[in-house]
Amino acid sequence: MNLQTAIGIDFGGTSIKPAVVRGKEILARGQRIDTQAFNGPDEICCAILAEVERLRTLYPDVVAIGLGMPGLINAVDGIVHGLTNVRGWHDVPLRKILSEGSGLPVAIDNDAKAMAYGEWRFGAANNLPNVACITLGTGIGGGLILNGQLHRGAQNGAGEIGQTSIHYQGVPAHFGNLGAVERYAGNQQIAENAVRLYKEAGIDRPLAECSPADLAKAANAGDPIAKAVWDEAGDQIGAALANLIWLINPNCIVLGGGVAQAGELIFEPIRKSIAARSMPEYIEHLLIVPAQLGSDAGVIGAAALGVDNR
Amino acid sequence: MNLQTAIGIDFGGTSIKPAVVRGKEILARGQRIDTQAFNGPDEICCAILAEVERLRTLYPDVVAIGLGMPGLINAVDGIVHGLTNVRGWHDVPLRKILSEGSGLPVAIDNDAKAMAYGEWRFGAANNLPNVACITLGTGIGGGLILNGQLHRGAQNGAGEIGQTSIHYQGVPAHFGNLGAVERYAGNQQIAENAVRLYKEAGIDRPLAECSPADLAKAANAGDPIAKAVWDEAGDQIGAALANLIWLINPNCIVLGGGVAQAGELIFEPIRKSIAARSMPEYIEHLLIVPAQLGSDAGVIGAAALGVDNR
Repeated sequence: MNLQTAIGIDFGGTSIKPAVVRGKEILARGQRIDTQAFNGPDEICCAILAEVERLRTLYPDVVAIGLGMPGLINAVDGIVHGLTNVRGWHDVPLRKILSEGSGLPVAIDNDAKAMAYGEWRFGAANNLPNVACITLGTGIGGGLILNGQLHRGAQNGAGEIGQTSIHYQGVPAHFGNLGAVERYAGNQQIAENAVRLYKEAGIDRPLAECSPADLAKAANAGDPIAKAVWDEAGDQIGAALANLIWLINPNCIVLGGGVAQAGELIFEPIRKSIAARSMPEYIEHLLIVPAQLGSDAGVIGAAALGVDNR
Repeated sequence: MNLQTAIGIDFGGTSIKPAVVRGKEILARGQRIDTQAFNGPDEICCAILAEVERLRTLYPDVVAIGLGMPGLINAVDGIVHGLTNVRGWHDVPLRKILSEGSGLPVAIDNDAKAMAYGEWRFGAANNLPNVACITLGTGIGGGLILNGQLHRGAQNGAGEIGQTSIHYQGVPAHFGNLGAVERYAGNQQIAENAVRLYKEAGIDRPLAECSPADLAKAANAGDPIAKAVWDEAGDQIGAALANLIWLINPNCIVLGGGVAQAGELIFEPIRKSIAARSMPEYIEHLLIVPAQLGSDAGVIGAAALGVDNR
């Protein structure tokens, strides 16, 4: 495979992280840019372009730029309709601005889709035709590869598995959507469930000591309550994934994020829940695997989107 | 558009209905073949080939054959892995048999996918890039068009919205899958809900008088109980569709089948449920429309699959 070099940019609400990437290899990490230190898109674009220029003097073979961003992005038209936790981004023609400023082809997409694309092209999903890449963390996000293409949907809004409901009369989520799985098995809810279960067992454990890492440690040390918390979260996540399986019948599901780092503690109940809720014909060949690229999935995927969409 | 003529075959558990089709026009209907009158695939294939030959003498410009079948079909390899309610079909290389027997290119696919394809190519969905076509009847079935292609998935099992769950601890369905929407808003369940609600109101109404047609008539005549039955079914179907919307972000949802024939009685609560459960950005441009091809969607879609996959 003849890999091209690109600049991948992980544009977050706190900081913007550029990197020079070839395939899954990070050749260099750029200067972080403090997202909140700037007044609006124009200033941020200037800062990004300055860092891009600096990196290109070090790596003159850069052929493209790709950005993953938290919000509603029109990847086809190259327009940022709005960003989560970043003010002033309304219908910004970002691809045009960065492309004219750098002279390079630019791709922009939603951050969850960029991460999914990274895991698909160079990570755990290994270019299989139908893949769901899910991030289990504070929120539950995802991206879909269908028929060998990143599936964006009508408003580039596809893949929002965290907002799908596991109970149509359940707990309301951000959009008023009842029963969103994110409201059952996000970081915060897992911690709250643990506090509740400990309390029911007569143990007072503060929320701050019920992070996924704490609960993984406790469960691995044999704590039955921590184990029960993982089992319940896995059952709920599995229920949402079973719906996804009935709808898109994937070859592979990739699970990343802080919650997935609990390993078999969460993978095992997820697999069990999926098996109980779907058809043997589907799951016989279904791979359910941990993400491989970790926190670099975003820049690797963004860079790959830049290269592949030139 | 230069339309080609093909033979579309709607292969059902009771009868096999061939038709000569050009675009969405039925040029001729073939002889029905009684599915249960034959011993196994070989005999049925002979009967189909005989009818194909007869139709081709009448329409010599037939360029392809397409079949929609109820079961697990590998459309890519042309193999029928198994049929619902038809004995003896295990891993039958049907495409090869019919293609060698007729000398024509043959496409085979799942019947729900053939219907979805028909509505997409020549019916209500009008070739939009991302479409879900759902049949609301005894069961709830569907097919997805994603990125302008029929989405089959890893085992040609995609689009099974009826099996997706609206309640992860709900009523078990055929595969043990708890809370499948089909178990809440299928024909039979709608009738049972009506009987229950009438009984709670002190009215004894037999199940046989609670068909979708009966309930539509009653609701249109102002019966508040019949209206409540439709509202509940619409809320539940809308919950399943909202999950689909979060996952694939379609341009258009096409609803057909007996339950959809209740018209606004079911469309209105479905729209309301979807609006309450998803993002304004998605639903602003989302079309939710009735199917146009009625009971001919199957043969029209099968014929189109035959033509398009030559």
